[in-house]
Amino acid sequence: MQQIPTANPWLAAVEPSPIGETKRWVLNRTFPADRPLIDLSQAVPGYPPALELRKHLGELLLDPAVHGYTPILGLPALRESYAAHLSGFYDAPITAGEVGITSGCNQAFCLALMSIAKAGDQVILPRPHYFNHDMWMRMQGVEPVSLDFRPGSGAVPNAEDAAKLIGPRTRAIVLISPNNPTGAVYPPETIHAFYELAQRHDIALLLDETYKDFLPEGARPHELFSDPAWRKTLVHLYSFSKVFALTGYRVGGITAGAALIAEIEKAMDCVSICPPRLGQEAALYGLKNLLPWARRNTEGLKARADLLGNGLQRSNRWRLVSIGAYFAYVEHPFAGQRSTAVSKRLADDENLLTIPGDMFGAGQERFVRLAFANVADDKIPAVLERLERFGA
Amino acid sequence: MQQIPTANPWLAAVEPSPIGETKRWVLNRTFPADRPLIDLSQAVPGYPPALELRKHLGELLLDPAVHGYTPILGLPALRESYAAHLSGFYDAPITAGEVGITSGCNQAFCLALMSIAKAGDQVILPRPHYFNHDMWMRMQGVEPVSLDFRPGSGAVPNAEDAAKLIGPRTRAIVLISPNNPTGAVYPPETIHAFYELAQRHDIALLLDETYKDFLPEGARPHELFSDPAWRKTLVHLYSFSKVFALTGYRVGGITAGAALIAEIEKAMDCVSICPPRLGQEAALYGLKNLLPWARRNTEGLKARADLLGNGLQRSNRWRLVSIGAYFAYVEHPFAGQRSTAVSKRLADDENLLTIPGDMFGAGQERFVRLAFANVADDKIPAVLERLERFGA
Repeated sequence: MQQIPTANPWLAAVEPSPIGETKRWVLNRTFPADRPLIDLSQAVPGYPPALELRKHLGELLLDPAVHGYTPILGLPALRESYAAHLSGFYDAPITAGEVGITSGCNQAFCLALMSIAKAGDQVILPRPHYFNHDMWMRMQGVEPVSLDFRPGSGAVPNAEDAAKLIGPRTRAIVLISPNNPTGAVYPPETIHAFYELAQRHDIALLLDETYKDFLPEGARPHELFSDPAWRKTLVHLYSFSKVFALTGYRVGGITAGAALIAEIEKAMDCVSICPPRLGQEAALYGLKNLLPWARRNTEGLKARADLLGNGLQRSNRWRLVSIGAYFAYVEHPFAGQRSTAVSKRLADDENLLTIPGDMFGAGQERFVRLAFANVADDKIPAVLERLERFGA
Repeated sequence: MQQIPTANPWLAAVEPSPIGETKRWVLNRTFPADRPLIDLSQAVPGYPPALELRKHLGELLLDPAVHGYTPILGLPALRESYAAHLSGFYDAPITAGEVGITSGCNQAFCLALMSIAKAGDQVILPRPHYFNHDMWMRMQGVEPVSLDFRPGSGAVPNAEDAAKLIGPRTRAIVLISPNNPTGAVYPPETIHAFYELAQRHDIALLLDETYKDFLPEGARPHELFSDPAWRKTLVHLYSFSKVFALTGYRVGGITAGAALIAEIEKAMDCVSICPPRLGQEAALYGLKNLLPWARRNTEGLKARADLLGNGLQRSNRWRLVSIGAYFAYVEHPFAGQRSTAVSKRLADDENLLTIPGDMFGAGQERFVRLAFANVADDKIPAVLERLERFGA
């Protein structure tokens, strides 16, 4: 019996999320006590949300008035608070009407893309790409146009290379910095060059800064919001998941000119009606009370990244391409072998779960992503040891 | 200064949600104590979730392990529990692999539509339509083909009329029963006739039963799941928002053949990564513990519907077209006047906020929707009084 009404061919052609795929490699396996599974596959904080936040939510739950829909783009208090946070962070005025709250940053991207591109349009997507960006474009009938980084660039794309890819169907350029999957932090000059390129061509720059809070304190990643004309070009995406350890709460943010926000509101209404209320309450509490808590975690993550990064730099076999607070992108030592095979064997032989570069687009067969935020410091030596031993 | 990158024209052409539009009619107004605003615009339960559920969530929050991502289609325990619930309700075997959890039923619809139709396809949508269905189709480039009910049918569409609308680009038929906006409960024969029509044409039937729990106890709305071939035709949509008063938690369900569920999973991954964790925990607790609580609320809503329905039937001016647990659909007494103008004046003159039929599609200019679940019994006489007095 055929088990399916004919599926939308655009959707059917998209590969499922590599997270699920790789997790299946270790499903139903058991692991010896001396070599437990170390999961480097998904970007999740290794700690729960602050206890004071959880207690705050617990008390809030007793209030009968916090269980219903909120306005489509979120609680006014949260929009105000988030806009004020961004204004402070970027030292530029951003108003509550220029931000919207979404059910996570993936959703913010989906809405941003829909607000600008329709089936048949093109969007420039640097490789390695964040897989959900590529997946969503394809299932919307939007064509991702790949932009490769130059060797030796530390996985930082180049606006001059992007310029050559712009054509009459191009609607936007996507950037993620600090990057997922590579961890690379794009220099302000790079971000500005892309912004000016987009501006010149009257297309949008979708800038995902989910990991902005893990940058060194006081380091503004760019000055785009200081140009009042940003509203014509920039769409900014953010997540509260990492900074406040709220991955399961599904709450993110989107910033754009008010007119585009009004378009995004229509799509948000359809996709979610509103972001989940408790996630919004958690984000609001976090912005008001937990930025110092988040900063302390950042310092811990930085120490962990240094531990892993220094170890990898000492390796004669694995080459560190780039590293951030959550991810390291490494070149594996097996010339001629695809990263999918390498990652699969790492799972089979060394009980290390990673995502192969292959899953971030063509041309990434030499790379593997290590998502280490969820891995305790005392396990980092084991990660390094297993990598070094593997296939040697 | 132009405040927008050029928006996606498909999205730009869509009107915003009428809920927001009508709420703006009363924004910043104040209301006299003897004629307070009565809001009949949105389908929200008039009570919070059960206190025991809220306490359960409060305790759960202290557990460090309930704050992260869940699998894309939800917690396995919730999928199991929901599948078991459906199996019992429909007296037919439905497995956990045939259900997925979504961030609300709107999202379930978005995913279901995407799984079956792409830009350029057509989907048959009965009128009056639920506005978000129409909006999502248009912003996806999918063409809604309208199906009007026959006069005197109690707002129940006819499968023979639908048959005439099926062409080579038709991918699905959408039904909502009990209906939003009309409240009409489609007879099993009607649902079966649509199912057979879809089956005959190898297209999908998207059946939204968000309000199924408000049907009289023991009344199975249809026997579709008893046909093992349902997996080729039926996609079933549901919400936990109304039954457990969880509107702000964003949790719904989708049921389809396992192969289509795998397609839906890819879209869900992009749009939400996973449904919000606490909403899932709430739904799970509800399914296990709160069905009797929900049944008691249903009885209260039924009494309220009778109060309003009987009053409307006594009116010589307003004609009751159909009524359910949440909605009444009424014909207004002003021949030649558009429902938008009538609803606006009801808000201005009588402080009654309603949604005009105009906002549910063309041809609905004589109708007004009253969403009364949120209006306490003791206010129903005031609703009837104000309607009767209005423009008389």
